[in-house]
Amino acid sequence: EITPLGTGAALPARGRHPSAQLLNASEELYLIDCGEGTQERLRRIGVNFMRIGHVFISHLHGDHYLGLVGLISTMHLMGRTRVLHVHAPEGIGSIIDIQLQASRTYLRFPLKVHVLPEGSGQEVWSDRFVRVTSLALVHRIPCVGFIFKEAPLPRNLRKEKVHLIPHFMRQAVKEGADLALPDGSSLPNEELTTDPMVPRSFAYCSDTAYAPELIEHLLGVDLLYHEATFTEQMSGRAKETMHSTARQAGMIARDANVGRLLLGHFSSRYKDVDALVAEARTVFPHAQAAEEGITLPIV
Amino acid sequence: EITPLGTGAALPARGRHPSAQLLNASEELYLIDCGEGTQERLRRIGVNFMRIGHVFISHLHGDHYLGLVGLISTMHLMGRTRVLHVHAPEGIGSIIDIQLQASRTYLRFPLKVHVLPEGSGQEVWSDRFVRVTSLALVHRIPCVGFIFKEAPLPRNLRKEKVHLIPHFMRQAVKEGADLALPDGSSLPNEELTTDPMVPRSFAYCSDTAYAPELIEHLLGVDLLYHEATFTEQMSGRAKETMHSTARQAGMIARDANVGRLLLGHFSSRYKDVDALVAEARTVFPHAQAAEEGITLPIV
Repeated sequence: EITPLGTGAALPARGRHPSAQLLNASEELYLIDCGEGTQERLRRIGVNFMRIGHVFISHLHGDHYLGLVGLISTMHLMGRTRVLHVHAPEGIGSIIDIQLQASRTYLRFPLKVHVLPEGSGQEVWSDRFVRVTSLALVHRIPCVGFIFKEAPLPRNLRKEKVHLIPHFMRQAVKEGADLALPDGSSLPNEELTTDPMVPRSFAYCSDTAYAPELIEHLLGVDLLYHEATFTEQMSGRAKETMHSTARQAGMIARDANVGRLLLGHFSSRYKDVDALVAEARTVFPHAQAAEEGITLPIV
Repeated sequence: EITPLGTGAALPARGRHPSAQLLNASEELYLIDCGEGTQERLRRIGVNFMRIGHVFISHLHGDHYLGLVGLISTMHLMGRTRVLHVHAPEGIGSIIDIQLQASRTYLRFPLKVHVLPEGSGQEVWSDRFVRVTSLALVHRIPCVGFIFKEAPLPRNLRKEKVHLIPHFMRQAVKEGADLALPDGSSLPNEELTTDPMVPRSFAYCSDTAYAPELIEHLLGVDLLYHEATFTEQMSGRAKETMHSTARQAGMIARDANVGRLLLGHFSSRYKDVDALVAEARTVFPHAQAAEEGITLPIV
């Protein structure tokens, strides 16, 4: 599931905060972008900071990362010992280091900084919960989007065959093994199991100009978060600042045939975002606005 | 007048924010410390960012400065052209530069960084509204407090003599000049004016261990802000972390014979701060807790 923590753009409007989203994959937490004040919003929704293992920073515009050093400091003060991975464009390491040095902070936990790859479809991270790949977004400075895909799930044992499988063999069978029988013959896996659930996927595209070259990578993701800074009326401004309109976000969603579209990064000029959602829905009906602190299941 | 924007300590508690205070001297605004999220609190109380001409950063612990780069970015995006002065310990320049470079931000306004002096009683800044001098606080990293003293006010014209003073001479008389009469004689200034209001003063001491050597510099200030991170029960912890107890803040206020004492930088262990205020009042009755967003006159 995903919880947007900030839905504003670079110039924060009253009531909207800079970009950050929290992804929960099987109770392991991944923070995506970390604008100023993210730690306060995490606290407000009652998240235990220690459960965050990774922070992914799409790019080094302040509204996407200025909360990172504060979050790291707080984790330190709260006695974190578990490693924290930070995935970000080149330059984040020095930005963190210079500030830890200035405050003479010697972290009590390992901080591992990973520089993001260039190009789309590169592996960013992989663990037993998710596999994360890159999207080469199109913005004024190097900017990377992410696709989070659930790790392959085990095959499901057929209820009527479970009694045939010795307990110690069940994990192997779930992973696709055939079952050797005492008489030397074997039962093929497909007689014992059914296909697993299809792994779910979430894509995060912020900030980016309209980039149809992303579509091949986004094909069929369950939930696409795509920035929608402006309406079509401001398409000139969108082009100039290398942001997208809500309609363009809808076009990407439609052409990539995603399940649902989540919009965010709303310009402060929009007091409410109904017009942005309506515009996206003209091309892709399953669109909705990200709401801060409201958790959405990925289905 | 002074408006505390954040009254929390390094580990922010729900409802309390990191250090920042806004000083209004004759409608010119001075920001003192700038913890993460300060720009949001300024927006919330309806402050026009452009009126802030100076930011004073006491030290480079994150809870005192991590909001600075975000504030600068927002001023930039809002089209600021007026110079912004930043007064801070050595190191702030690189911290700002590395982050502006990462985001390829070329400020449209001049940013002047001034490294704070070491030692107490040094001039930090002086303009037609205030004179700011330094206080060598005692903390784990270099840390500077500030005394803001109102610029000398003009003498007051005696009502019954105003008619004697030609309009073009009034400013000079207010500034202390005698009045030359047409007959070649002159009226001494003291017959035309009364003494001006005594300039008001505000001192800001955060963060610091108990430092009685500051008292000679604090003598008679109208309002003293002094950190009170802990109660006496935690005096060991206060010593270890180089913070003060509420009682120690009260002792400084009492021994410097200040007008009023404002307490802040409360440890997150205190859900309410009544015990801290009560403890300070045992030695100095005119003590109160800083409250976020509540403006206090300096009288």
